[in-house]
Amino acid sequence: MKKTRIDNGIFITMKEENPVVTGTMIMEGSRIVYIGEPPAGELGECDERVDGKGKLFLPGFVNTHGHAAMSLLRGYGDDMALQLWLQEKMWPMEAKFTAADVRSGTLLSILEMVKGGTTMFVDMYDHMNEVAKAVEESGLRACLTRGVIGLCPREVQDAKLEEAVRFAKDWHGGADGRITAMMSPHAPYTCPPDYIERIVAAAHELNLPIHTHMSETAREVQENVEQYGSRPVAHLEKLGVFSRPTLVAHGVHLTDEEIGILKQYDVRVSHNPNSNLKLASGVARVPELLKAGVLVSLGTDGAASNNNLDMLEEIRLAALIHKGVSGDPVAVPAWDALKLGTVDGARSIWLEDVGTLQPGMKADFIAMDIDQPHFFPRTNLISHVVYSATSRDVTDVCVDGRWLVRNRECLTLDEEKIMHEAQGAFERLTSA
Amino acid sequence: MKKTRIDNGIFITMKEENPVVTGTMIMEGSRIVYIGEPPAGELGECDERVDGKGKLFLPGFVNTHGHAAMSLLRGYGDDMALQLWLQEKMWPMEAKFTAADVRSGTLLSILEMVKGGTTMFVDMYDHMNEVAKAVEESGLRACLTRGVIGLCPREVQDAKLEEAVRFAKDWHGGADGRITAMMSPHAPYTCPPDYIERIVAAAHELNLPIHTHMSETAREVQENVEQYGSRPVAHLEKLGVFSRPTLVAHGVHLTDEEIGILKQYDVRVSHNPNSNLKLASGVARVPELLKAGVLVSLGTDGAASNNNLDMLEEIRLAALIHKGVSGDPVAVPAWDALKLGTVDGARSIWLEDVGTLQPGMKADFIAMDIDQPHFFPRTNLISHVVYSATSRDVTDVCVDGRWLVRNRECLTLDEEKIMHEAQGAFERLTSA
Repeated sequence: MKKTRIDNGIFITMKEENPVVTGTMIMEGSRIVYIGEPPAGELGECDERVDGKGKLFLPGFVNTHGHAAMSLLRGYGDDMALQLWLQEKMWPMEAKFTAADVRSGTLLSILEMVKGGTTMFVDMYDHMNEVAKAVEESGLRACLTRGVIGLCPREVQDAKLEEAVRFAKDWHGGADGRITAMMSPHAPYTCPPDYIERIVAAAHELNLPIHTHMSETAREVQENVEQYGSRPVAHLEKLGVFSRPTLVAHGVHLTDEEIGILKQYDVRVSHNPNSNLKLASGVARVPELLKAGVLVSLGTDGAASNNNLDMLEEIRLAALIHKGVSGDPVAVPAWDALKLGTVDGARSIWLEDVGTLQPGMKADFIAMDIDQPHFFPRTNLISHVVYSATSRDVTDVCVDGRWLVRNRECLTLDEEKIMHEAQGAFERLTSA
Repeated sequence: MKKTRIDNGIFITMKEENPVVTGTMIMEGSRIVYIGEPPAGELGECDERVDGKGKLFLPGFVNTHGHAAMSLLRGYGDDMALQLWLQEKMWPMEAKFTAADVRSGTLLSILEMVKGGTTMFVDMYDHMNEVAKAVEESGLRACLTRGVIGLCPREVQDAKLEEAVRFAKDWHGGADGRITAMMSPHAPYTCPPDYIERIVAAAHELNLPIHTHMSETAREVQENVEQYGSRPVAHLEKLGVFSRPTLVAHGVHLTDEEIGILKQYDVRVSHNPNSNLKLASGVARVPELLKAGVLVSLGTDGAASNNNLDMLEEIRLAALIHKGVSGDPVAVPAWDALKLGTVDGARSIWLEDVGTLQPGMKADFIAMDIDQPHFFPRTNLISHVVYSATSRDVTDVCVDGRWLVRNRECLTLDEEKIMHEAQGAFERLTSA
């Protein structure tokens, strides 16, 4: 197996006991085998040597909620009320999406994500074979799921569920193990209770986790109470969703009692601060979730409601807004925010060997150019990453021991072609 | 005078009636003389031709509140309660700042700002001659003021005021007119009432505006009431501050009545969303200020409480947080947020010929590389700048008709030297 050695680097490990290491990191095959003082002798002999001078290395960002293909609708209908935006802009356009459009939008998103330091993402959408193929080509890691909406006749429900099961069987463990799968009822308000139960049964059979939208808006919570007599958390609990390992997206409107239930079942929450602000959904109770011991991570949501896929922005927002809104200047400190966007993201999708830089872990990491004014003086590099850096400071990206980006150039994808085709797909969709 | 022509560009003009122009812009000397279809004949003959293909041009960002030298303390004491942070970290270090430190920190900040697309900034600090000289060298535009704290004996007050007057006389209209000056009582809580009155008298004599911090924290408002029997707005009104053109920083904690008073006196408010969130000061009532017709602009505050000087981040935060906090998804739309960061910033410091791209205006503009995935598809470029771009997408910066940055390289400043010296200054300050 190929051995690569990075010297003269500064490494944010995301390990509490030695958060910043200066020196050398060695990877062999897909894994990190060494990090620390420059080693001598046989251990130090490598096939590839990289000079890490002027660079800061850290685990890649893990984006735990999104709809990659929606980048085709970036900026198409901003600054609108949510229902108008959905009914007049998003749904009519999405209904026209072909498999080729999903491929095109997904590749555009993957390109944006990887160049911005995201090494793994969760995707819930349709035409998921196209998404999986794009992940395979790109070299990223992903946790994929065919999101199903159940507001349709029984035979359509059946077909969608069958498709979701087929996809999971075909791709769970695919792309050399870089792809895992989940089962996804889209949301409590888009799936009748019996359909959710059938999806849960399928997840049990496949031994897969569940991913769903939950309690994103106050209106949706209220309607759940009116329609089913309970708020979304109790509703999903009753339907057995939490009997599976579960990752919920958003979780903006939660009571203390609901936070307790999420903790009890070890339900993971993907916090999407940018999307929640832009769509005026509100500010999730992240300090309370963290205090209760709920595992929280970060997601961008789709680019149509964000409007980028910039995980560093989500990390910074997580560190900033909860201070400003709670009035507590020590809420979600920099270290905690960076954890949410890296190692806690990986743990949220049940990966224990991704998200820190230490021997035995997958070599999923990024490098940032820190020879820039906003990284000076060298007071606290963790602070600098969270409060001062931008995703465009990322120069190199490695996933599963393979370089996907070097010197800001993506090695696995044709950047020009992807941007050109996305533009063409958008123009066809709007002219049709 | 030198004539420069930019062809094949897309220009965000910040004029309501023609927000986006595709074609050619021509500048002559320090001003824009043409924008529109590529002109033929004599008008089109130029000394310099620039190909604007793949670039988006827009007015430079105007940062209306900050303390540039404080970038020397970037990341030095984050995630702390405000009073601890001030008393244990900021004040002891700032007390040690020499003129050379102020020069070093200011150059670091100017370099960061200009590379991120800021073409003009407001600075309130000490050793202002160093700041003015750094502005002169760099080529930026600035509105500068010696901020005075009056919690000291009368003779020290006198000396500070005299220094502030001297500075204003020396530099107002300096650097080929790129520097203007203001008078600055630091804040109602750091200046006794009679001292504020004397500063106002000096401002009348010099015919200069006033800049001050106001109503940044709830605690400060409460203490003003306890000490002086009124909230800061009424207090400053009574002391005659608003009899001068006034720009206040922060304005986080305002009642409806206070917003009315600010409007009545045409007081301008510099909104500093990132700093206000990070220090947990709260969320300013920007939608209400805008609705009342108060002129609002954006500032970064010092890099010690931000921790960068990234105006695009302030623009994005202004567009995002007020939606999320108010629950109104159309609060502060993209166009309005971009205005706050450009033309309204210039108007806030009484410059009417900066901030839009049209004939007769100063040639203060920037270019962004939009051949990147997060700018696709080409739906709405104003949305893309506000919701999707980063300051590191800025490739070129022009101020007063002079190129300061080309292809991401600053032409007027020695980047390596500035970063090296800032690091040295910080190390001396912490080891002393």
